[in-house]
Amino acid sequence: MDAISVIRTKRDRGRLSDAQIDWVIDAYTRGEVADEQMSALAMAILLNGMEREEIARWTAAMIASGERMDFSSLTRPTTDKHSTGGVGDKITLPLAPLVAACGAAVPQLSGRGLGHTGGTLDKMESIPGWRALLSNEEMLDVLGEAGCVICAAGDGLAPADRKLYALRDVTGTVEAIPLIASSIMSKKIAEGTGALVLDVKVGSGAFMKNLDDARELAGTMVGLGTDHGVRTVALLTDMSTPLGRTAGNALEVRESVEVLAGGGPADVVELTLALAREMLDAAGLPDADPAKALADGSAMDHWRRMITAQGGDPDAPLPVARERHTLHAETSGTLTRLDAYAVGVAAWRLGAGRARKEDPVQAGAGVELHAKPGDRVSAGAPLLTLHTDTPERFDYALEALAGDAVEITDTASFEPVPLILDRIV
Amino acid sequence: MDAISVIRTKRDRGRLSDAQIDWVIDAYTRGEVADEQMSALAMAILLNGMEREEIARWTAAMIASGERMDFSSLTRPTTDKHSTGGVGDKITLPLAPLVAACGAAVPQLSGRGLGHTGGTLDKMESIPGWRALLSNEEMLDVLGEAGCVICAAGDGLAPADRKLYALRDVTGTVEAIPLIASSIMSKKIAEGTGALVLDVKVGSGAFMKNLDDARELAGTMVGLGTDHGVRTVALLTDMSTPLGRTAGNALEVRESVEVLAGGGPADVVELTLALAREMLDAAGLPDADPAKALADGSAMDHWRRMITAQGGDPDAPLPVARERHTLHAETSGTLTRLDAYAVGVAAWRLGAGRARKEDPVQAGAGVELHAKPGDRVSAGAPLLTLHTDTPERFDYALEALAGDAVEITDTASFEPVPLILDRIV
Repeated sequence: MDAISVIRTKRDRGRLSDAQIDWVIDAYTRGEVADEQMSALAMAILLNGMEREEIARWTAAMIASGERMDFSSLTRPTTDKHSTGGVGDKITLPLAPLVAACGAAVPQLSGRGLGHTGGTLDKMESIPGWRALLSNEEMLDVLGEAGCVICAAGDGLAPADRKLYALRDVTGTVEAIPLIASSIMSKKIAEGTGALVLDVKVGSGAFMKNLDDARELAGTMVGLGTDHGVRTVALLTDMSTPLGRTAGNALEVRESVEVLAGGGPADVVELTLALAREMLDAAGLPDADPAKALADGSAMDHWRRMITAQGGDPDAPLPVARERHTLHAETSGTLTRLDAYAVGVAAWRLGAGRARKEDPVQAGAGVELHAKPGDRVSAGAPLLTLHTDTPERFDYALEALAGDAVEITDTASFEPVPLILDRIV
Repeated sequence: MDAISVIRTKRDRGRLSDAQIDWVIDAYTRGEVADEQMSALAMAILLNGMEREEIARWTAAMIASGERMDFSSLTRPTTDKHSTGGVGDKITLPLAPLVAACGAAVPQLSGRGLGHTGGTLDKMESIPGWRALLSNEEMLDVLGEAGCVICAAGDGLAPADRKLYALRDVTGTVEAIPLIASSIMSKKIAEGTGALVLDVKVGSGAFMKNLDDARELAGTMVGLGTDHGVRTVALLTDMSTPLGRTAGNALEVRESVEVLAGGGPADVVELTLALAREMLDAAGLPDADPAKALADGSAMDHWRRMITAQGGDPDAPLPVARERHTLHAETSGTLTRLDAYAVGVAAWRLGAGRARKEDPVQAGAGVELHAKPGDRVSAGAPLLTLHTDTPERFDYALEALAGDAVEITDTASFEPVPLILDRIV
């Protein structure tokens, strides 16, 4: 077996054999297959595709490259959610304690942001004292204490994926459905959850720009989960405009706490409840009532217990950016476009995100939305407020919002895109 | 400018801009673009192709990555030949002194073998004392003395190509027509020859397995040469069976000397004369008579002067392998197939070639053919003799010759493939 013959098979539109896949993943993890060989293979996979059986074997080989977690000591059913990433997507924050309040255990292993999409761990770290890095034992303790935990995945989980993901990020090979699906699912299956709900984002602010690609990705991931005994369902949800009214770390924590307090923006509440129902249903708790758990404060109670168990202070004031700049509407009319990608890039440039993995993020930076698509606005009314500690970045962030990122039209009949576009089982 | 955006352009079937090409070649040469990024780009080029303008710019950027040689001090016109590589292809050895004897200057910068095809420098180094590594000054001295020189290309010539070629070799990205064409032509144009004849091999023993691919490669290279002011012509020649009666280093030198002495196998003589006429015509010497220069000993005279000027002894006995093993015909009939690739692999396994660049080669190892396709053979007559210093390799070499590599048929009407298949100007 050698790397060149594996690359040639896929380059020439062949089907990789089980033995080729097992060997190449193992040899890459051990460093026998070089980065330049794996990146050529990744590009061939991106351009020539993989059959369902190849993706299944590729995923199994990545799981086999590391350890698997074991939640069998828990008495509650485990259920987890994964989002493919969007702008203003803080849903994990209210969702994990909400589902815990309804009787399931939620082990939410999360990541950091790269590029224009935010990362759950970056958001949570704006809470003073809160720790993302937990040992497996600490993780189980927090789960027992609060019913949910949000923390970083350990190094032992699917190390082949960790190495391959970093490589894809610098070689233009991120956007391959077989590689995205196997990357997400190898980590989730190795993590050992019993049920999984996928939030597959579609639109300008997401990896998948159109519904067909999103359906293919969702179908591939649901198939992989089901084949490995994980009850898996996917919702396809709109990411043409940001979720909620904030994009940025502490800004999104504040909005999440509003939702847990029974308020918050309608779209965030709608998606949180829809995903909670799917998670509870997949966990075998179809009769739980998440709307009640939001209203009666039990979800907030689990949030506070989780923050405290991970060293954070749920009552501490959240960081606020030093400088603000507000954009106003130039004309009156209906806000017909507020582009997710443009807002994501603006928040990133203001300091909410990082260009390289080792960069720090600003806790207070980001974008606050004063109107959402479909809202009537008057000339001179505030549209967006930019937050940053480094005001010299305002101009660079404003560039991202120029052009047709924001559109106000004199129309009476504007139909916003529905939030939930499809459901794949 | 960054590597990922260049990779994405080609991945998404776009056309690379001049600025993107100039930047990526320069940044790769300087080490700013990493090997894993360049291999992903090479795979995208292999699968999605390049337009003629892109290949031209890519070639120009590779030339610009290093120095260009200058033959303006020579009074004779310069002309050069390049073969895309085959089995038993020793044509450069008799051809360079033959064309020199007819009045042109032949600066033949050559390479070493890798895989199943032999390398001109490996063959020449079986001549005791002969040196492949010359300074630019020594090279000009040998050219002045003998009218021709066969030597290694210096490190300063198209360093981007040197780096990219080594990368393609280990990443399954060798077989991309834009990359093959730009690799060959960047070196030849940087070398500064005024005229160039390309011998594009077609068949099992060549990179190009079919005529259409070979025509595309030849047309691309002729276009590149012409655009850079080099008078360029290509012959498409058969490589379904080995050239001549030997494949191996000293074995091929011996056969080349036979040709220079006025003898040698008919196919080697035919191709040597055809290429000589093309080289002389392209150099502005259409009235030269290469057949006469072979017959009257003047080509041999130039060979001896070249060998001597490069430290070799043209009269020294050539190395002979320690062990031999002969294969005999199992039945009587017409030899209808003697596969070039199989013979090339057998010679390689016997020690004539190398698996890695740093491996040594055996001077005496190789395969000697006692019959060629179209010949009548009798049961029990010798077909092939294998030569090696390491007889434990006989079985491994014989494996390559099993199956349908050799075919004897009881047929009266066998039409061998013509040696010269097409001419592209």
